Amino acid sequence: MNETKNSQRSMLPEPTLRRLPWYLAYVRLLDNLHVEHVSSTQISKELNVDASQIAKDLSFLNIKGKTRIGYDVHKLVKELADFLGFKKKHNAVVIGAGSLGAALIQDKGLQQYGLNIVAGFDVNSDIVGTSVGDTPIYDMSELKARQKECNASIAILTVPVEHSQDAANTAIESGIKAIWNFTPFRIKAPANIVIANTSIYAHLAIIYNRMDVRK
Amino acid sequence: MNETKNSQRSMLPEPTLRRLPWYLAYVRLLDNLHVEHVSSTQISKELNVDASQIAKDLSFLNIKGKTRIGYDVHKLVKELADFLGFKKKHNAVVIGAGSLGAALIQDKGLQQYGLNIVAGFDVNSDIVGTSVGDTPIYDMSELKARQKECNASIAILTVPVEHSQDAANTAIESGIKAIWNFTPFRIKAPANIVIANTSIYAHLAIIYNRMDVRK
Repeated sequence: MNETKNSQRSMLPEPTLRRLPWYLAYVRLLDNLHVEHVSSTQISKELNVDASQIAKDLSFLNIKGKTRIGYDVHKLVKELADFLGFKKKHNAVVIGAGSLGAALIQDKGLQQYGLNIVAGFDVNSDIVGTSVGDTPIYDMSELKARQKECNASIAILTVPVEHSQDAANTAIESGIKAIWNFTPFRIKAPANIVIANTSIYAHLAIIYNRMDVRK
Repeated sequence: MNETKNSQRSMLPEPTLRRLPWYLAYVRLLDNLHVEHVSSTQISKELNVDASQIAKDLSFLNIKGKTRIGYDVHKLVKELADFLGFKKKHNAVVIGAGSLGAALIQDKGLQQYGLNIVAGFDVNSDIVGTSVGDTPIYDMSELKARQKECNASIAILTVPVEHSQDAANTAIESGIKAIWNFTPFRIKAPANIVIANTSIYAHLAIIYNRMDVRK
């Protein structure tokens, strides 16, 4: 049974991985309000996701709801945060410590979700040698050498689009396992490297188009 | 023919809207390198998207590629930026001027994509009355009254999760047409309001899971 659970976790579909943090955000709210139990029907009403989909998503976790009572809220928060990897510490470096990069370094939210940004790297001599909060900004040329102390598995890519592939290559050569790409460029990488694209400008295109349609 | 084009634009599928900014980023690079023509096959190789998909996506635009020559790069940049709404100015307010909110206010990239952030709003008396760059931060209670001068169609939501629905409600009451939601909470809104969710923490869950699988 446990083996099945594990293999299911390995193949967790992306839509499920996108929905689970929504559930976590909501049940955390309930937990703060000292609510003890929640049903998938309740979560469904609140989040506008089909109740059977919620039950299916939560079936990947090691938690069972009780008939008519639902899930233990406190346990569900713990299980979800554990399962999503938010309780482990994942070392990361930011490549490109401009406005967006510096912002991510300072975002306390990311720490609560298990991301530990240990250093920033940039080519701009005005900011190399400075720090953002407690996080030092090093010269991009030092990335490989610094990786020993940084021990980062994730590179957060916030460089100008024309430098994105080069920066990604350097990160991969330095032993990075995953690239969180905030540039609108499609990074090419070997199959063993995890790439996640957060293309915030693409979301703008969607907003503009949908606003036009509803005018 | 133009009518067909227009109605197609209106119903533009989200995956197409997500891919078009990738093409734009790439052909902008080519344009800066003074490359004159590009084929969908070339774009395909570079971005790892099927060439026929690219041709289909670009067919929504008012541009035609020439056989064996491809698309005029300079025109394609212009058409894509126009089509995606990046050349118009869209007024926006940031609700929640904490670390992420302040970062978005300062991100020059967003301006290049047509987003004009005119003000920030917060409840924290330490930052109300200050400004981030040239952008003033007002008290959240002033949102409705300030909307006349702000004339914002988009609210960027970067508040703590427990305040997200209330903040969204206030934004909607003040006449906002679209909410760009950076919180992990699922906002409820009338059907005429555009909601775009950029759940950066969900992307972390995907990165952590995929890294585990490839260990």
